[in-house]
Amino acid sequence: MPNISDVAELAGVSRKTVSRVLNDEPTVKASTRAKVLEAISALNYIPSQSARQMRTGQSNIIGLISDEIATTPYAVDIIKGAQEATWEYSKLLTIFNTENDISVEKRTLDIARAYRFDALIYATFYHREIHLSEDLPDIPIVLLDCYEANGRFPSVVPDEVQGGYAATKALLERGHTRIGLINFDTPIPATLGRLEGYKRALEEAGIAFDPALCIYENGLASGGYRGARALLQRTNRPTALFCWNDRVAMGAYDAIRMLNLAIPDDVAVIGFDNQEIIAAELHPALTTVQLPHYEMGQWAVRHAISLLSSASDGRDPKPVQHKIECPLIERESI
Amino acid sequence: MPNISDVAELAGVSRKTVSRVLNDEPTVKASTRAKVLEAISALNYIPSQSARQMRTGQSNIIGLISDEIATTPYAVDIIKGAQEATWEYSKLLTIFNTENDISVEKRTLDIARAYRFDALIYATFYHREIHLSEDLPDIPIVLLDCYEANGRFPSVVPDEVQGGYAATKALLERGHTRIGLINFDTPIPATLGRLEGYKRALEEAGIAFDPALCIYENGLASGGYRGARALLQRTNRPTALFCWNDRVAMGAYDAIRMLNLAIPDDVAVIGFDNQEIIAAELHPALTTVQLPHYEMGQWAVRHAISLLSSASDGRDPKPVQHKIECPLIERESI
Repeated sequence: MPNISDVAELAGVSRKTVSRVLNDEPTVKASTRAKVLEAISALNYIPSQSARQMRTGQSNIIGLISDEIATTPYAVDIIKGAQEATWEYSKLLTIFNTENDISVEKRTLDIARAYRFDALIYATFYHREIHLSEDLPDIPIVLLDCYEANGRFPSVVPDEVQGGYAATKALLERGHTRIGLINFDTPIPATLGRLEGYKRALEEAGIAFDPALCIYENGLASGGYRGARALLQRTNRPTALFCWNDRVAMGAYDAIRMLNLAIPDDVAVIGFDNQEIIAAELHPALTTVQLPHYEMGQWAVRHAISLLSSASDGRDPKPVQHKIECPLIERESI
Repeated sequence: MPNISDVAELAGVSRKTVSRVLNDEPTVKASTRAKVLEAISALNYIPSQSARQMRTGQSNIIGLISDEIATTPYAVDIIKGAQEATWEYSKLLTIFNTENDISVEKRTLDIARAYRFDALIYATFYHREIHLSEDLPDIPIVLLDCYEANGRFPSVVPDEVQGGYAATKALLERGHTRIGLINFDTPIPATLGRLEGYKRALEEAGIAFDPALCIYENGLASGGYRGARALLQRTNRPTALFCWNDRVAMGAYDAIRMLNLAIPDDVAVIGFDNQEIIAAELHPALTTVQLPHYEMGQWAVRHAISLLSSASDGRDPKPVQHKIECPLIERESI
């Protein structure tokens, strides 16, 4: 087993410096920190848990409290991003999935206190408002894909407006001027934000917003099928469809085929989410806009760790809502 | 906050009996245990963590060490089943996703020891053989959707042979005698077991196995598309396709449409996995065979807890490999 002296030797620094890196002391230069982390990784050095915990009062465990991320297929990349950021700091991520059960959440908070978790990430499987208890541990808390109205804690969410704008702009750039929108029938941030982005892109292009081109459906393939049929059977039909998510696009594909139209020659289709299990597998492969799940997971953990080294009471002095861009993923459907 | 006396009163038992249920003592009658659990649930009673831990030397935490379940969309119901079984016993499930990184796994095992986890579940996102370290904590360990060749630990896996049999039998019962199989090109238990079940069902029906009807592909929609085109363009084409998974079926759908054939009238299609995000959303909705992810998660946790109360050293005296049935999910494609 390698020890701290081996790490110091390989990195060309003192044992004291390695220890400062391990304790996340903010005074270490970034380049020195990188060298030490590289040596730790090359040697597969594992700091003694109890020794560290005694020194720092920390467990090196970051807890991720999720509603349903671990039990649904939609947002698993949140966990991937959070865990990779956690590992960068030689910490461990442990996940508690609560299904919004308050008693499970309370017991999770008890454990976070008893075992001195370094920080807590509250994450949801879709972008929404949440209401947290007043009784939370005094450690850094970051909200991921969700936010509180009161803004007590820092939060990271997708930039839905920019995402809706990017999708619409991609269609406009290919010459489409009649763009149908099959939106979701529940007014959550994804619905409202993407609609706003759609309107903004149309306005920039000098095209009047036509409410008759917007249809509200259930967010599933069945809704995409119904919505696409309704829009495409009109006399002055749209030449492109912006679908609220990739499943809606999947249903739209079926309607388009049923009407003997071709994708993208007769009708261009763009989705949202970049749920690869659908988007990459459709025929033709679906152009879509990606939810930045991985990047949000990474940001939340890195921000929590930065608070850990800067704030003595663990709370963020100036909590911000950080928005992350939703990039266009180009495939073959537009 | 309700206390143990409130639970005893509501359940009509003594405080001692409630305590015995909380400690999972095997001597409590099942009916009494059920009454107490009902009262606990009705009152939302939360046993004091530290008090219990002192009495029992247990943390009431079950650790689930997963390779990639929490970061892929394929097997999330494993976590759902495991967590619901854990909650039945007023314990908490915490998930460590390792991506097969040995250093992460080692640190997870250190934490399981330091925090006195009750039990560990080792789970994989597809059915496969694994090789565990020799250096494991002396607590119950159960393997979930995986197994070791040496059979040290109890294990729960899907009954792939029965699943392949059920899919083929469903097609035979609808009168098909030429059934194509688009199998996976890597010889893992799912590939071999489902092929064996397919052969067994044909044999029972007195139909000779025809290797020309079996195609090996990549397990994705692209493979399903290629495989279905190849099989359906032969002169004596199959009238039904058994696809290795739902994504393969999704690709087969595209090929069938491209050849202007109808599902199920010209070609019946059956999938495997029951990945709802695909199977329920395809048009027509896909008949498939379900992987018993939820049930395996439930079984693994319940078995670990039964070991906890029966074996003093935490090891299973007679580790078994438990196979769980893969049920047919009937929709509209056969």
